[in-house]
Amino acid sequence: MQLNKDQIHTSNQAGLSRHAARFDFLAAQLGEDGTDVEGIVKALADFQVAIPSWALGAGGTRFGRFSFHGEPANLEQKMADVGILHALTQTAGAISLHIPWDIPTDYASIRQLAQAHGLVFDAVNSNTFQDQAGQDLSYRHGSLCSTDEAARAQAIAHNLEVVRIGDQLGSKSLTVWLADGTSFPGQRSFQRALQNTEDSLRQIYAGMPKDWSLFIEYKPYEPNFYSTVIQDWGTSFMLANACGERAYTLVDLGHHLPNCNIEQIVSTLMLKGKLGGFHFNDSKYGDDDLTVGSIKPYALFLIFNELVYGMRNNPQNPYPAWMIDASHNVKDPLEDLIQSLEAIQEAYAKALLVDQAALAAAQDAHDVVLCQEILQGAYRTDVRPLVQRARLQLGGALDPLAAYRSLGIRQGLVAARGKHSVASGL
Amino acid sequence: MQLNKDQIHTSNQAGLSRHAARFDFLAAQLGEDGTDVEGIVKALADFQVAIPSWALGAGGTRFGRFSFHGEPANLEQKMADVGILHALTQTAGAISLHIPWDIPTDYASIRQLAQAHGLVFDAVNSNTFQDQAGQDLSYRHGSLCSTDEAARAQAIAHNLEVVRIGDQLGSKSLTVWLADGTSFPGQRSFQRALQNTEDSLRQIYAGMPKDWSLFIEYKPYEPNFYSTVIQDWGTSFMLANACGERAYTLVDLGHHLPNCNIEQIVSTLMLKGKLGGFHFNDSKYGDDDLTVGSIKPYALFLIFNELVYGMRNNPQNPYPAWMIDASHNVKDPLEDLIQSLEAIQEAYAKALLVDQAALAAAQDAHDVVLCQEILQGAYRTDVRPLVQRARLQLGGALDPLAAYRSLGIRQGLVAARGKHSVASGL
Amino acid sequence: MQLNKDQIHTSNQAGLSRHAARFDFLAAQLGEDGTDVEGIVKALADFQVAIPSWALGAGGTRFGRFSFHGEPANLEQKMADVGILHALTQTAGAISLHIPWDIPTDYASIRQLAQAHGLVFDAVNSNTFQDQAGQDLSYRHGSLCSTDEAARAQAIAHNLEVVRIGDQLGSKSLTVWLADGTSFPGQRSFQRALQNTEDSLRQIYAGMPKDWSLFIEYKPYEPNFYSTVIQDWGTSFMLANACGERAYTLVDLGHHLPNCNIEQIVSTLMLKGKLGGFHFNDSKYGDDDLTVGSIKPYALFLIFNELVYGMRNNPQNPYPAWMIDASHNVKDPLEDLIQSLEAIQEAYAKALLVDQAALAAAQDAHDVVLCQEILQGAYRTDVRPLVQRARLQLGGALDPLAAYRSLGIRQGLVAARGKHSVASGL
Amino acid sequence: MQLNKDQIHTSNQAGLSRHAARFDFLAAQLGEDGTDVEGIVKALADFQVAIPSWALGAGGTRFGRFSFHGEPANLEQKMADVGILHALTQTAGAISLHIPWDIPTDYASIRQLAQAHGLVFDAVNSNTFQDQAGQDLSYRHGSLCSTDEAARAQAIAHNLEVVRIGDQLGSKSLTVWLADGTSFPGQRSFQRALQNTEDSLRQIYAGMPKDWSLFIEYKPYEPNFYSTVIQDWGTSFMLANACGERAYTLVDLGHHLPNCNIEQIVSTLMLKGKLGGFHFNDSKYGDDDLTVGSIKPYALFLIFNELVYGMRNNPQNPYPAWMIDASHNVKDPLEDLIQSLEAIQEAYAKALLVDQAALAAAQDAHDVVLCQEILQGAYRTDVRPLVQRARLQLGGALDPLAAYRSLGIRQGLVAARGKHSVASGL
Repeated sequence: MQLNKDQIHTSNQAGLSRHAARFDFLAAQLGEDGTDVEGIVKALADFQVAIPSWALGAGGTRFGRFSFHGEPANLEQKMADVGILHALTQTAGAISLHIPWDIPTDYASIRQLAQAHGLVFDAVNSNTFQDQAGQDLSYRHGSLCSTDEAARAQAIAHNLEVVRIGDQLGSKSLTVWLADGTSFPGQRSFQRALQNTEDSLRQIYAGMPKDWSLFIEYKPYEPNFYSTVIQDWGTSFMLANACGERAYTLVDLGHHLPNCNIEQIVSTLMLKGKLGGFHFNDSKYGDDDLTVGSIKPYALFLIFNELVYGMRNNPQNPYPAWMIDASHNVKDPLEDLIQSLEAIQEAYAKALLVDQAALAAAQDAHDVVLCQEILQGAYRTDVRPLVQRARLQLGGALDPLAAYRSLGIRQGLVAARGKHSVASGL
Repeated sequence: MQLNKDQIHTSNQAGLSRHAARFDFLAAQLGEDGTDVEGIVKALADFQVAIPSWALGAGGTRFGRFSFHGEPANLEQKMADVGILHALTQTAGAISLHIPWDIPTDYASIRQLAQAHGLVFDAVNSNTFQDQAGQDLSYRHGSLCSTDEAARAQAIAHNLEVVRIGDQLGSKSLTVWLADGTSFPGQRSFQRALQNTEDSLRQIYAGMPKDWSLFIEYKPYEPNFYSTVIQDWGTSFMLANACGERAYTLVDLGHHLPNCNIEQIVSTLMLKGKLGGFHFNDSKYGDDDLTVGSIKPYALFLIFNELVYGMRNNPQNPYPAWMIDASHNVKDPLEDLIQSLEAIQEAYAKALLVDQAALAAAQDAHDVVLCQEILQGAYRTDVRPLVQRARLQLGGALDPLAAYRSLGIRQGLVAARGKHSVASGL
Repeated sequence: MQLNKDQIHTSNQAGLSRHAARFDFLAAQLGEDGTDVEGIVKALADFQVAIPSWALGAGGTRFGRFSFHGEPANLEQKMADVGILHALTQTAGAISLHIPWDIPTDYASIRQLAQAHGLVFDAVNSNTFQDQAGQDLSYRHGSLCSTDEAARAQAIAHNLEVVRIGDQLGSKSLTVWLADGTSFPGQRSFQRALQNTEDSLRQIYAGMPKDWSLFIEYKPYEPNFYSTVIQDWGTSFMLANACGERAYTLVDLGHHLPNCNIEQIVSTLMLKGKLGGFHFNDSKYGDDDLTVGSIKPYALFLIFNELVYGMRNNPQNPYPAWMIDASHNVKDPLEDLIQSLEAIQEAYAKALLVDQAALAAAQDAHDVVLCQEILQGAYRTDVRPLVQRARLQLGGALDPLAAYRSLGIRQGLVAARGKHSVASGL
Repeated sequence: MQLNKDQIHTSNQAGLSRHAARFDFLAAQLGEDGTDVEGIVKALADFQVAIPSWALGAGGTRFGRFSFHGEPANLEQKMADVGILHALTQTAGAISLHIPWDIPTDYASIRQLAQAHGLVFDAVNSNTFQDQAGQDLSYRHGSLCSTDEAARAQAIAHNLEVVRIGDQLGSKSLTVWLADGTSFPGQRSFQRALQNTEDSLRQIYAGMPKDWSLFIEYKPYEPNFYSTVIQDWGTSFMLANACGERAYTLVDLGHHLPNCNIEQIVSTLMLKGKLGGFHFNDSKYGDDDLTVGSIKPYALFLIFNELVYGMRNNPQNPYPAWMIDASHNVKDPLEDLIQSLEAIQEAYAKALLVDQAALAAAQDAHDVVLCQEILQGAYRTDVRPLVQRARLQLGGALDPLAAYRSLGIRQGLVAARGKHSVASGL
């Protein structure tokens, strides 16, 4: 199933004149204040977020998993789902594969399929946090950190295999997320685990093609944990430095202790040229993997404010890889992703509205009240017309969620795939 | 110093036509969706927040206190400050006194002064968390919870004295906030402390006029604490029930453990008819007493969504007392309060935009995606024109902060009071 | 497989003289200070903790589940496992069934089996947090809180069926734990959910035999949650009061927000006669369900200090139901439970050592330093000889873990059950 | 006032025989298990913790400060207090000065006084978190991070002045703790603040004598903060690396977000040779500065377990500087410090009891149960006789707190200094 432009175009008609009125009014207002509205629309149009292949089926909790009807059953169907998302939103132009859940069998056809959907392959993800059927050695006691040299070698080889697969698809980066940790004090030597992990990552880094980047994710804890080997950005940063200049830290919004100032971490990493990527989601209590922007949208805006600053002022930092890393338990995954993409674009648009020169001047003058006014002035602006305009210009839907529903997309998927198809992977 | 309406009127002129264009456009858009714009503007105009008398000077930290120039040195000057705030914002029409910091000497003249500023006296606040000069017994080991009957009697008498003072000013409620707690395990019997507190509160309740209400605040901790006697809403609720039907729980945004779902507490209390009041502020890490809406504006919106629901659907709950409870260390206190009031009105306006009938229908249909769309649709709307319109109708400033600056109010206060006046109290 | 007393007796021989020397020395020392050593040993011997039927297999995480060899495959085998635990520790003399995972087919034989193992049936647990195969209606959108009356009725009927089952086994209480909650703001009306839950619980309460108690558990969040219907002790307490005098709050150590003062909650509930039960486990970050005492043993001691106080001074509170509620991912479940039971007895023994009269006197004198000395003096005492003595008197093992290993119990279970048996339930 | 050895010796007599019996019994038991008891007693005797000069008076909260009678009014009296502590405990043989609160006027006499008390001067502490009377420029908007070059220069000069003072007293290290941070989003550029801080620290580092070390403290937040420049160990570590090899991270127990795994941070820093010092205290909710070991003694033990490991296995790390960093609001400061010192020695003694070889073997065998047994076996041992023996060997008090009280030391201080003397500084 593939959406064609005409369907979207047709579904847009009813709302176009209202959109035009709103956009024109907003653009005029912003223009009076000296805002480069066209520049913002262009920046929004250029912004592409990767969708991970595992996000297209229902997630699960420890109590079970409620499947959605019409889930994609294989890689081709997952790509079709991302293609639909991209057609509607024009901001989901990349897919991030998770190996071994999504190993292509025919690379050429998969590359063609991606092209047909307008997608590129972003970072590939390895998996050593689960044992796969038929695997020689278990990761029960750790993977890259393991005291068992053979288990470590197996995990390194797996990562290099993931790189090999990604390379054939045009990916240029590997994301490593580890669940290596312990449940109890004393269970493992912190120092040996860290040294083994550093050594393993260096071997992976050494085995990658020279135009590849390595992204090292961190996380303070998993349920049932007492410690995690890569518990914070400081550990990831240290490991990235140990690997080399194409190794970076990857920040996932949900991977922080309560109350952590995440925007400051983003800012520090960009200053040091080490922010490799950013994973979007939202949370209330822990690593909840909820829809982006559903709980703390202002925090997301503050993060984007730092990202915008860094992208403009930190040439030492590469352009970061963006990905949504969420889980879907009570929503249709595609609808959830549409809401996430909207929230990301909204936060980005608002950050682009911040008058950075005025902000810097207010900071220099220690006018704290004015600094806040500048940020909140941008944040309070209703930027939906800008986001819509960017989508429209690229042939997307004025209102992707409404189009998804009115076009009966889920029903079409169920008809094509059957009610009880189940996504591979998590 | 008192602002006259003409000054404000004049300062508004330059922005009026722009405001009118924005308001008309927004009203038309909202009207198309069936929103009762006039009703919302009226509700905003009716909403009045009390300013506590201690919020008008600079707050302090354990490292010291940076005074602002022109601080109000006595009650009359504090009322003048609130009068200025109210003249500009038209939403600060009440003052909340803190005793013994602000004991009037001439009640008649204070009442007249309040009238002149358009202010009423909201809840009065007692203070047994500090020892006052000349006080017989120390509260070092607790006040209402003390094992020393004489100290407890002194604290009860103080509270009733506060009621007597408030009664002469037209207040109708007493807010009790206790710092009674311990620093170390074992330091005090939890049960005796709770029983003593209950007994003390009942005596205070019994001594109040029959048309007065008692508000019982809770808080999990103070710096240097191991326990607090009234640590959470459950304890406050239990104590309020023990006192009687005019005793209520008071919720302060900053008084919760990390990640607590505060809007749910508000909702539960209103269902049970026991939400007496709400104290506004914001925080990143603990009880930071920062400007309202400066850190988590969406959480504030979600709270207002429950408040609006409760005010409409819970006749068993009295109209709550609203107060700002913030501290000002790096901002001019009046500017900080203007920003807080703006954030409160914004959150209230957005909550008023929520289509409650549509939300209930989406909830019944388990359409989680649509529920979120409804809330976010309201939240994403730029409601500043609505808030401005409510102010304008009452003679307030189009942009209170800009008016405060352009009218040179702080400079006027410094000229009148001197640079180094210091606020009484904290 | 059943351990006979002789096996344990024999395994104890090597260590008896060392134990005797240690016990005698400690008893003499404590006796000099006026401690009633015999009374403490007796109290320890009387203390029995229920083992839940689901704790005998390996737990799981979202990444998978690593089974242990020789897991109990049915209720009879689970009871055998608890029988082994009890034979070794003499403090696990109860089992807590989880329905529908452990529905007996032949009640008489199950009761006989329990008697043979020296076990009684403690509180029974219902399950409406998962859908069972063949169930009419899903709990996807809530059970006791559901807006769907039929789903609610089904959940109520299930609870009463659990009571009926428990009644035939001699249980006298029902524990209700709900995962009813939401993932997103706006998803459900807090007030309707709470009212529905109250109504459902009242129906369950009304349907129980008159000598039964209802235990209502609370929990702030599950992974992927934005809100939980019964989020804290205050909500549970309110619901218990609404049900009636045989309805109580149940406290689970892991079910609290960061930094919460749990011992104070325990103390408050006992004062009000509403602490029905306590679930033991430990955690570092959230509801980690780790081995009791493995992370915060001093907090456990402080809780026991309040429990001992309440059991002595609060006749209004029933004797609480004790249960271990942990999960086992990297340890043999039986070994994990042995460690948990040891930690519970240790904390209880230390709390029994606290000189309550001296503590009360120090509190009255505001001698905070002495209060701490009294608590820490008890806590720093090595009470292992006391715990061992209590076990020995009842015919248990001097060192249960060592005996478990030296007697080759796991190997025996594997031989009897096979390597790949898998526990029913979670 | 100075304690003489005879006084202490005399006060010890009554308890000596009981101590001897306990020590002999414990030593025999431990000896049977192969423990080197003498080595542990020696290690305890060698362990010296610095007392900061500001810890000898009562601390304060935002509600006021309850002074203790007989507070030391000047540096000489503070040294006398530390001298008393050291005489009693024999583990407080160092003092850490805070400048400008404790600037010596006559260096030679201060050095002599220290010698008389058996004290050395540990790390000196600068203070740019408060404005001092007569200071040219305010640190209201930051010190080492300031955008105002002159304020930065003043702060750098102050730090170098502190070094100069310390150098004359024999100190060899400077501890820098900054309250540089912001209250509101947008108030300051994270990147400029971090760069300025790095630049300032490098200048301080460059200005120190070549045998001095620089300790960089971190902290996530202060009350009223939105961000802190050096928010975590990662930032401090990065700054230390930027300065040079004699720059180190300093860990303060209270300076972490909720649930942080601090022992892992300690372990990582020692592996990298960058743990410069450790500040002891305890906390329940935030940076509470409570008595060491009063809330989470097991966490302290786990930290010491890593410190012992690192001191034995990480020659790349210097011997760390130890200091108590607590505040005293409801206890006599000297009694509080005695309790803190006891808790530190207890945790150290227990960590020394851990059989590291057996632990490493259990870790290699993935015997998680045994790993826990080894740690808990050490922790459950009552090590008070070992700590007492180390004190006795050095001429200290068997029970320092009892001796402090029975010798009437506070009364002596009040008699000598007057009731209302007030400590300089905080």
